Amino acid sequence: MGGSLAERILATMRDVEDFPQPGVTFKDITPVLADGDLLAEAVRAHADPYRDRVDLVAGLEARGFIFGAAVALHLGVGFLPVRKAGKLPGPTLGVDYDLEYGSARVELHAEDLPEGARVLVVDDVLATGGTAAAGCRLIELCGGRVVAVEVLTEIAALDGRTLLEGYTVRSLVTV
Amino acid sequence: MGGSLAERILATMRDVEDFPQPGVTFKDITPVLADGDLLAEAVRAHADPYRDRVDLVAGLEARGFIFGAAVALHLGVGFLPVRKAGKLPGPTLGVDYDLEYGSARVELHAEDLPEGARVLVVDDVLATGGTAAAGCRLIELCGGRVVAVEVLTEIAALDGRTLLEGYTVRSLVTV
Repeated sequence: MGGSLAERILATMRDVEDFPQPGVTFKDITPVLADGDLLAEAVRAHADPYRDRVDLVAGLEARGFIFGAAVALHLGVGFLPVRKAGKLPGPTLGVDYDLEYGSARVELHAEDLPEGARVLVVDDVLATGGTAAAGCRLIELCGGRVVAVEVLTEIAALDGRTLLEGYTVRSLVTV
Repeated sequence: MGGSLAERILATMRDVEDFPQPGVTFKDITPVLADGDLLAEAVRAHADPYRDRVDLVAGLEARGFIFGAAVALHLGVGFLPVRKAGKLPGPTLGVDYDLEYGSARVELHAEDLPEGARVLVVDDVLATGGTAAAGCRLIELCGGRVVAVEVLTEIAALDGRTLLEGYTVRSLVTV
């Protein structure tokens, strides 16, 4: 398959109608993950700009763990799972944020994040930006510095960059 | 820090008392993930025996995504997320399994798994083996072949290998 990385990712994604709710077309990335060459190329595209510029990669639960851990491995740095409420054992710090209906919370082990550590935040999709913004605030609350937010797919219509104002945000694909 | 990989992983894990329930000491792996050198070494230990022997790496949600994706990247093959019920968009195949109280279900996109594909199953911990056994059955239901199950930590007292009889099971650390 020829074309740019973005074109090949877009061509490989699967459109799923009416998920997670009627009228929404979901861009399913599992065919991208299942393609070893495309997965490796996407990981390199996420990671290479940050070579020697980050100390840790944070992944947002659950799909952000996939690219996040692979990017951490590629850069030779550690991985920090930013988890949903109640999932991490022992003391955590957390940040609550609003969802369309209700609220959610992300949590982190502050002791795994050295003061001043430079952190790259990775997730698979940037939608409203609520989870990513909460993750960035949480990393700062724990004493880390957010170098950038990397996402595979940005859903332009949901304008997630507004909530992430002040952060460097990069996406491999925009839909 | 000297010693074997297993010794260094054990020395780096954090003991959390009374999680997820009173009387249980949880072996928290997040300090292992946060150590870039140890993470890379653990990924190589998981992956290297399977070089050119697997077509896909399957990771069990959610912590299995972390090592699973990194192992897939290291081997240059694709990654298959085995997810909890209702998380994957579109048609899935699933397998139900028993928990201590109630039941759970793992799901997979069968179309991401070519008939006869050789699959390495990765998770962070082998406890009772229920989730791993359901994941293996699901991969076979989708037409795949399970080459082995790799876990970071095996909890010997819970005897998860019984449910995984007939499968090759390897752990980096036994507690």
